[in-house]
Amino acid sequence: MTSKALISAVVCILSAQLGSAQTNELADDWKPSVLNQPGQQYPQVNSQRYARFRIVAPQAQSVRVSLGRGGTALTKGEDGVWTGITAEPLDEGFHYYRLTVDGGTFNDPGTLNFYGSTRWESGIEVPAHDQDFYALKDVPHGRVQQVLFPSKLTNTVIARVAYVYTPPDYDKDWSKRYPVLYLQHGWGENEYAWWNQGRANLIMDNLIAEGKARPFIIVMTYGLTNEGPGPGGRGRRGAGGNPFAAASAAFESVLVGELIPYIDANFRTLTDQPNRAMAGLSMGGAQTRAITLRNLDKFSYIGLFSGGVISTNDVLNTPGFREKVKLVFCSTGSRENPGAIKANHEALNEIGIKNVAYVSPDTGHEFQTWRRSLREFAPLLFRD
Amino acid sequence: MTSKALISAVVCILSAQLGSAQTNELADDWKPSVLNQPGQQYPQVNSQRYARFRIVAPQAQSVRVSLGRGGTALTKGEDGVWTGITAEPLDEGFHYYRLTVDGGTFNDPGTLNFYGSTRWESGIEVPAHDQDFYALKDVPHGRVQQVLFPSKLTNTVIARVAYVYTPPDYDKDWSKRYPVLYLQHGWGENEYAWWNQGRANLIMDNLIAEGKARPFIIVMTYGLTNEGPGPGGRGRRGAGGNPFAAASAAFESVLVGELIPYIDANFRTLTDQPNRAMAGLSMGGAQTRAITLRNLDKFSYIGLFSGGVISTNDVLNTPGFREKVKLVFCSTGSRENPGAIKANHEALNEIGIKNVAYVSPDTGHEFQTWRRSLREFAPLLFRD
Repeated sequence: MTSKALISAVVCILSAQLGSAQTNELADDWKPSVLNQPGQQYPQVNSQRYARFRIVAPQAQSVRVSLGRGGTALTKGEDGVWTGITAEPLDEGFHYYRLTVDGGTFNDPGTLNFYGSTRWESGIEVPAHDQDFYALKDVPHGRVQQVLFPSKLTNTVIARVAYVYTPPDYDKDWSKRYPVLYLQHGWGENEYAWWNQGRANLIMDNLIAEGKARPFIIVMTYGLTNEGPGPGGRGRRGAGGNPFAAASAAFESVLVGELIPYIDANFRTLTDQPNRAMAGLSMGGAQTRAITLRNLDKFSYIGLFSGGVISTNDVLNTPGFREKVKLVFCSTGSRENPGAIKANHEALNEIGIKNVAYVSPDTGHEFQTWRRSLREFAPLLFRD
Repeated sequence: MTSKALISAVVCILSAQLGSAQTNELADDWKPSVLNQPGQQYPQVNSQRYARFRIVAPQAQSVRVSLGRGGTALTKGEDGVWTGITAEPLDEGFHYYRLTVDGGTFNDPGTLNFYGSTRWESGIEVPAHDQDFYALKDVPHGRVQQVLFPSKLTNTVIARVAYVYTPPDYDKDWSKRYPVLYLQHGWGENEYAWWNQGRANLIMDNLIAEGKARPFIIVMTYGLTNEGPGPGGRGRRGAGGNPFAAASAAFESVLVGELIPYIDANFRTLTDQPNRAMAGLSMGGAQTRAITLRNLDKFSYIGLFSGGVISTNDVLNTPGFREKVKLVFCSTGSRENPGAIKANHEALNEIGIKNVAYVSPDTGHEFQTWRRSLREFAPLLFRD
C-alpha cells in the first residue's frame, strides 16, 4: 500500500466515523421548512441548521439534492422512500435547490418554487437568529401590486411587469407623496425575487412600524429585458446572447425611458432626484452602478448588495458625483469578499464621499445577505 | 378463440392502425405552451390541440404525464430523453398536470406551476378559438395587489392574504368609488387562481376597454381558512378534517367579519348592498351560495360557476330574496351537466327571478369554463 493509498484509507475510515458521530449528535428537533407546500412535512430543518429531505420515488435508481457541499445523495429505504441529511449545517436564511432524479432535474414536490438560475427552483428556509426583522407581524402592512406598464422601446412586448410596494399609510392620505427606491434582483432571478425570497415588503413594514425608516415606495421589475413577459405577467423570457451586456443596455432604456415615467404618472411619488434611489443585488448591483452613474440627474442614493463597489475612480470620472449623490452603500456577505468592500469604504472616505460598507455575518452570496442589506440601507434613505 | 377474444384482437389491431394513422395526420405546427418556463421549448401544443412532452431523465424506468384520457406514457429515446404525445386532443384552455417519474410525483421542469389539488402543479395552455378575450393587449391595465389583512377570528394566523384587482382608472380620480366583486377559487386552489390560471385581470381590462363592463374592484382570497398562510404570504395550509364544512364556516366569518370591512376601509369602495357581488367556481360556487343566502343584506349579485345552482327552494326559503337579489348567474361547461343549469333557469324564470344560465361550449370542469363565465357575468354587474 502506498502512503497515498494509506492516507486515503484512513481518511475514508475517519469520514465514516465522523459521519456516524455527526448523526448521533444531531438535534432531534426537526421542523418543516416554512417554505414547504401546504401540508408537506419535508424538507425539514433542525436547530443546528441541518436539512433533511424525503422524496417518494420507489422505482428510481438515484436521487440527489443540490444542497450541502457537493450536494447530498439520498438513500432508498425499504419503503421505497428516499431520505437524507446534509453533511454539514446550512447557512441561515433562504436557499435555492433542485433534485436530480435518475439524471433528470426536478423540483422537490414538498416545497414552494422560487425563480433563480433562470428557472423556478425549490426553496428552503433555515431559521436565522435575526429572523424577526423579516417576520410577518401584527403591524400595519403595505401592499405589493403588479403593474403592467406599456413598453415599446425594445419592440419585444406589449407590456412589462413590475411589482410595486406601497407603504402602509399610502392609501390613508391621498395628498401625500413618497420617495421611490428602484430595487433589482440578481442574474437568473426576476421581479418576484425581492418580495418573495427577499421579503422586502415585510422588512419595510417592520422598519416603518418601529420608526426606523421613512415610508417610501419600492419598484421591482425584471432586469433582463431582451425578451418580454408572457401573457398574464408570469414571464416567459428566453436565454440567448450575452445576457449581461445586451440586457443591461436594454434595461437602462426601459427603466429610465418607460418605467420611471409610468411610476411617476401612476403613483403618488416625489419625482425629483433627491427622492429617487436605486439598489440591486449581484448583477442588479452592477446594473445599479452603471445606470446611476449615467443618470445622476435622476438618482441620489446608490446601493450595491454583493454587486461590486462605486470606486474612487467612478467618483472622479463622473462629473457632478460629489454634488448629486447623497449616499453610496456597498454590502457583501462575510463569506464573499468583505475585504474589498472595506478597502473601498476607506478609499471613499479619504476623498470625502459619504458611504456605508456593510458585511453580513456568516452568509455568502445568498438572500440572507441581501435581506440584511435592505434592512441596513432603507433607514438611511431620503433623510435629507 | 372466443368471439370476445376475437373482438378484442380486432379492436387491438384497429387501435394500432388508428394510432399510426393519427400520428401521420398530426399537424406539424407545434409551439411551446405560453405557460412554459423562460426559454423552455416543451411541452408543446399543435393546432389540433394535441400536446407533446419532453422530459430528460436518462436513468428513469418510466415517465408518465397525467394529461390525456388515463394519462400519457412517455417513451425513452436512445438519447435518454422521454417523449410522447397525447392520444387525443385536449380541450381548449388551461389544464393542470403532473409527472409520475419512477413512481414519484413531480412537476414538469418545463412549465410554470399553478396551485391546484392542494399543490403547485404543472400548467399547460391550449390556445382557444376565443382566446382574444383574455389576451394581454395594448389597453389600459388595472393592477393586482397583495393585501395582508389582520385576521383574529380563527386564531390561526396574524394576517391573511387577498389579491385585489383595481380597474385601470382607479388611481386617476381619487374621488371615485367602485363596486366590489368577491371572487372565489375552487377546492385545492388558492388566492392566486383567478388572476393566474383565470386571467381575471386581463378579462376585466379588455371588457372595460371595450366598454362592456362597468369598472369594479375584484377581491380574491383563500377560501379554506382552517389554516393560515405562512410568512410572506405564499401560503402554508395543511389538510385535515372535512375541508368543505369546517373551512366554509370559518371562511364565512373571515369574509364577512374581517375581509369586507378591511376592503371597505382601505379601498375606495361603494359599501352598500347593491354594489357588492359574490361569485365562485366549483367549491367557491357552493360557498357563494351558502354565504350570500345567509347575508343578503350584503350581496346583490350571485354567480355560481360550475358550482351548482340557486334553486327555487333557495329563493322560497330565504326571506327577502326577491327584493334583495338583482341577478342570479349559473354556469357550467358543456361537458359537465348543462341540463341541470338549464332546467333551473326555466324554474327560476317561472317564479320570476331574474337569472342567467350560461353553458361554455366544449369545455369541462376547468378554467376555460370559468374564464368564459367571468366574461359573461361581469358585464351584467352593477347595472341598476
